[in-house]
Parts: sequence; C-alpha cells; structure tokens
Amino acid sequence: MDDPVLLTGAGGRVGEAILQGLGEQYDWRLMYHNPPDEEPDHEYLVGDVIDEAVVREAVDGVGAIIHLAGDPRPSAPWKSVLSNNIDGTQKMYEAAVEAGVERFVYASSNHAVGAFETDERTPEMYRADDDYRLDGTELPRPGNLYGVSKATGEVLGRYYHDEHGITVCNVRIGNLTEDHPPIDYERGQAMWLSYPDCAHLHERTLEADYEYEIVYGISDNDRKYYSLERAKEALGYEPQDNSAEWDGDEHVADYERTV
Amino acid sequence: MDDPVLLTGAGGRVGEAILQGLGEQYDWRLMYHNPPDEEPDHEYLVGDVIDEAVVREAVDGVGAIIHLAGDPRPSAPWKSVLSNNIDGTQKMYEAAVEAGVERFVYASSNHAVGAFETDERTPEMYRADDDYRLDGTELPRPGNLYGVSKATGEVLGRYYHDEHGITVCNVRIGNLTEDHPPIDYERGQAMWLSYPDCAHLHERTLEADYEYEIVYGISDNDRKYYSLERAKEALGYEPQDNSAEWDGDEHVADYERTV
Repeated sequence: MDDPVLLTGAGGRVGEAILQGLGEQYDWRLMYHNPPDEEPDHEYLVGDVIDEAVVREAVDGVGAIIHLAGDPRPSAPWKSVLSNNIDGTQKMYEAAVEAGVERFVYASSNHAVGAFETDERTPEMYRADDDYRLDGTELPRPGNLYGVSKATGEVLGRYYHDEHGITVCNVRIGNLTEDHPPIDYERGQAMWLSYPDCAHLHERTLEADYEYEIVYGISDNDRKYYSLERAKEALGYEPQDNSAEWDGDEHVADYERTV
Repeated sequence: MDDPVLLTGAGGRVGEAILQGLGEQYDWRLMYHNPPDEEPDHEYLVGDVIDEAVVREAVDGVGAIIHLAGDPRPSAPWKSVLSNNIDGTQKMYEAAVEAGVERFVYASSNHAVGAFETDERTPEMYRADDDYRLDGTELPRPGNLYGVSKATGEVLGRYYHDEHGITVCNVRIGNLTEDHPPIDYERGQAMWLSYPDCAHLHERTLEADYEYEIVYGISDNDRKYYSLERAKEALGYEPQDNSAEWDGDEHVADYERTV
C-alpha cells in the first residue's frame, strides 16, 4: 500500500496498537473524534463520521481505510450505535467508493457473535481442550445492540464490495490488551489479541490479495473458540502471541503448547 | 394464536394478501402509515414505526406481531431505510419485548440476498433445470441498501430472540403478485409468491412451534433458487401454487410438473 491510509477512531486502543506496530510503515492520515491530547506524529483531522463533508475530506486521496471509529461500548444504547456505528459506517463506505478507495478494513467485533456463548457452552468453550469453533461462515448472533451494529457494518461491507468492487475485510476483534492477557478471565484469555498481533493482522489486511473476508482477530491462544484458519489462509496472518504463555502478568518464557 | 395480532404496514400488498386469506381467522389490529382510503374491517391505528408512543400503543395486549412496515422500495435511499426499516424495526422489537409479546414475524426480503444473483449464475439460476439453492443458512448478500436494511432487521430478530426469548421468524419474501405470476420475467417467476401461499405461510408463522427461523417465502415454483425445505420443516408450509402452471396470465389447469 503506497497511497496514504486513513485510520478512523485513531484515538482508541485498536488505533494505538496499530500505530505502535505500523506507525513508520505507512503514510497515515488519522481521524479523531475529539482533538488528540498530544500532537500526533502523522497528518490528522478531527470530526464526526456522520458529517459527510468531513468524511469526504478524510477519504480524499487515500488508497485504503481502516475504519475503527464508532461507539465502542458493548452497552452503548441503540440511538448511539444506530448513528455512530451503522450510519457512520455507511457514510464512510459511500465516500470511499465515490473517491475510488481500493480497500476498506472494518473493525467488527466478537460482540457480533456474542450470543453463541450460551449457558450450555460456557465456560467449557473458553477452555483449551474444547474444540468448539466459530469460523466466520456462521450467521451473526449478537449479544447486544452494539453487536447488532457491528454485524450491520459487515453487511454494509458485503454490499459495497459486491456493488462497487472495493476490497473489504471485516475483522472480528477479540479482547485487545497491552502487555499481558486479561487475568482471571477465561473468556478474555480465549479471545486475547496482543498489541503486536493486532498490528501484524492489520498489516496483512492492507497487504494481502483478497476480495471480501470475515476473519477473527485473536492471538494464537491455546484457549480459543474462534478459528484462525481464514485469517491465516486468506491474509497470511502469523500470530506470535498466546495467552497461555502468561501466568497472570508474568510471561512464562519456556511455556510449551499443550494443545 | 388467540390474542390479537398486530399487522404493521397493513396498507401494503403483503398486508393485503394476508388479510384476504386470514382476515376472519385472527383478531387483527392493523397499523397504517397513512390513513386508509376505506374504513378497515378491523381495529386499526395510524402512525409511524419510529414514534415510540404510537408503537407502544400498537403492541399493547397483542400476542404476536407481523411487522411489514417500512420503506418497501428496493431503490430507497439510505436515509429512509436507516430510519423506517432499521430504526423502525428496532423500536418495534423493543416495544414488543417490553410488552411481553410472544411472537414476531418479520418481513425480510429476497433483496437481503440479491447479490447472490451474479452475472455468472444468471439467467441459469432462474431456470427449472438449475439446482442452485439458497436455504437461509448463508450469510446475507444484499444487492441494495434496502436489502442491507432487511438483513439488519433479521439480525435484530436474532438478538431479541436470544436476549429476550421472543419467538422470531424472518420471512424472505419473494415476488408477490395477485392473480398470476410475473409475465416474461424469469427471475420473478422463480421467486413468485401467490396471494394464497403468502397468507398460508403467514398463518404457519403464527401457529407453528419454533424458536428462531429464517425462511424463504415463495410458491412451489418449478423454477426456484430458494429452498422451501426450512419453511416446510419448521413451519409446516404447504404451498399450493407454481408459476409454471401459468402461460402468461392464463392458468394451465392440466399442467404437469416437469422437475
């Protein structure tokens, strides 16, 4: 990707992980919802994703978009996700295809499929010896209205890909934490995504040759119920981290994979 | 279903087909977007599905809802489907679960999967000797923003079912016409839904014992690319009509099924 890359929601944690890993690798244009506390190292603008004029300005001249902006709260009320997540994503896609942007990477979420975690399956599905897997071919099953909005963002991508040919990757991001995996939280360990793996995965979404994909964004955890097959096969994702290599906040250097 | 049934979008064609077939069978409450031209035979109210007060009034005391209301135009602009179809359906679900409504039948559409009709597959997929089938387990693939809104309505149903236990059936309605199938229109003949079959299918969605379903709503046409298996198995749907029994607008009484 030689053209500039627009990163929306640049002030959030996913944006932080991406910029930590890939800050030097791309010609970034950052879009913030609120003015950043510190002066960014890259070109940036501030605005709302439902403001069509700002969105047109944001996408002008970029080759790809990583669209992270939206209300990130799983408990966000409908009014907010309808506007910020659903309407905002449509406006971003519309501006992208009008401007001839080639590639759109969409921050979907584990919450798009959260209701697969039924009482019957948990906590077993969070454990390393359980072989239940979601692989991205299943119909969405959100556990909250935030998840409904993320599933809708995926469908918008399907439409804009089919109708306008834009390359689209929906990344169902797991539980992103810096430094160490969640402690005493099996579910979070099962869907842990380390900062380096997050950056690497997004590098692959910008570089790999594909048309339309839905992939799960987690590290190569022993515990998992999301398949990494599609991310590996379609994108060449090679995760380096595994929540099982951690004992609380201590990295266990000589950990040996047991599954 | 002994309790009253709310029918939204009662002034549209699907509503007309349902009331023609089932008008006497249920205690209907009709909801119209605009005042009806003629005085309806049933209790009714007029209002907008995004008006929470009207929606609360509409659902009060009903046992089931058939939710047809929304902008029905495949070419409808985003702003309209975002409000009338997506927001309107969420508001209807929210009011339904608050009021303890047991069952919600949602008028989804063939447009939720319209982009499966690719140049490579058409027109062959519209023909009786072609065995390509969509069966409702496939991820949505809308051909327009109206279709995106219908796919979102389906996901809202999945969420409200999982979270609140309400019984939900999403009916991907084909090409509904009165009297005879579309003429000189292979696609329309392949997804034809007769008025009697439309009424019967909705009767099954109100009576059958199921949890959450996505079914295709078409007659038993020789030409078809939507499977009727799920509608038959989960709902007991027994369609009586077949577009192949028609030569233009003439019904061919002695037609013999060829496939």
